Amino acid sequence: MIILGIDPGYAIVGFGIIEYNSNRFRMIEYGAITTDAGVPFNRRLEIIYDDLTALIEKYRPAAMSVEKVFYNSNAKTVIDVSQARGVIMLAAQKTHTRVFEYTPLQVKQSVVGYGRAEKKQVQDMTKRILGLTEIPKPDDAADALAMAICHAHAGSSCLDPAAGMRIRKGI
Amino acid sequence: MIILGIDPGYAIVGFGIIEYNSNRFRMIEYGAITTDAGVPFNRRLEIIYDDLTALIEKYRPAAMSVEKVFYNSNAKTVIDVSQARGVIMLAAQKTHTRVFEYTPLQVKQSVVGYGRAEKKQVQDMTKRILGLTEIPKPDDAADALAMAICHAHAGSSCLDPAAGMRIRKGI
Repeated sequence: MIILGIDPGYAIVGFGIIEYNSNRFRMIEYGAITTDAGVPFNRRLEIIYDDLTALIEKYRPAAMSVEKVFYNSNAKTVIDVSQARGVIMLAAQKTHTRVFEYTPLQVKQSVVGYGRAEKKQVQDMTKRILGLTEIPKPDDAADALAMAICHAHAGSSCLDPAAGMRIRKGI
Repeated sequence: MIILGIDPGYAIVGFGIIEYNSNRFRMIEYGAITTDAGVPFNRRLEIIYDDLTALIEKYRPAAMSVEKVFYNSNAKTVIDVSQARGVIMLAAQKTHTRVFEYTPLQVKQSVVGYGRAEKKQVQDMTKRILGLTEIPKPDDAADALAMAICHAHAGSSCLDPAAGMRIRKGI
């Protein structure tokens, strides 16, 4: 099964594509869709939508694993990240890709086994699980690969927000 | 000039289409794109995107006037409205429609002449300005028509967020 992990944003959208079969992981590609601050915001949304659609059409993932957006102290950032996340969701919908959402806590628990793990620990484990020689850069890509691993590990607690139902382990 | 006003949301997207020429207003169409709570969220985003794109292609507005999203006490609502607003912005971008943003304060000042005007006053003035026989329903559609009037009235204080520059009165 091919899984696409996404770390949402508007300046940087991290992505990580892995294959997971019979409890074995293989890294396929990782990187980031980036948009410049000088570009009009709506054009930035279009770049994210188009580039992500191209990525999905190239690899045809069985699932997209996306980080949940939370409120933080910067209202404008939350609103703009959410707008970008809207077009990320639309790209999945338009390509008939199933979407699964996880919190940072769930990702840490899944990858490191400890919900309060440091970012560095998550990155180290991501590197080890995928058999990489170094920690993926940028951080957004490493986070996206961790999102994908989290979905591969997901058990009965995994909620499919698109279908609105709990799914079985291994899906 | 045809102006499309939008009141963003995910359950209800109000829209109002007016024509504004030589200081005269004409109401063309108003209504709401609605999505049911039982429908998966990503599908709701797709309905909003598709229906709005069809509306833009039908009327080819010279400008889209959209309410700014603000932080409020309900974090989940702000995040979900922002996700819907992202696909609304994408629909404008994909159809090469210029987008202008206004705050509720700007709309009240523009339509009623008083920033602290009550909702009812804004609706009454919207009805009078457009020469309607009754207040448009739902409220989201009335709000969207007020957004469109606000853009028609917009003077030198009008900021075009897409171009990132101030524009002249009457554009």
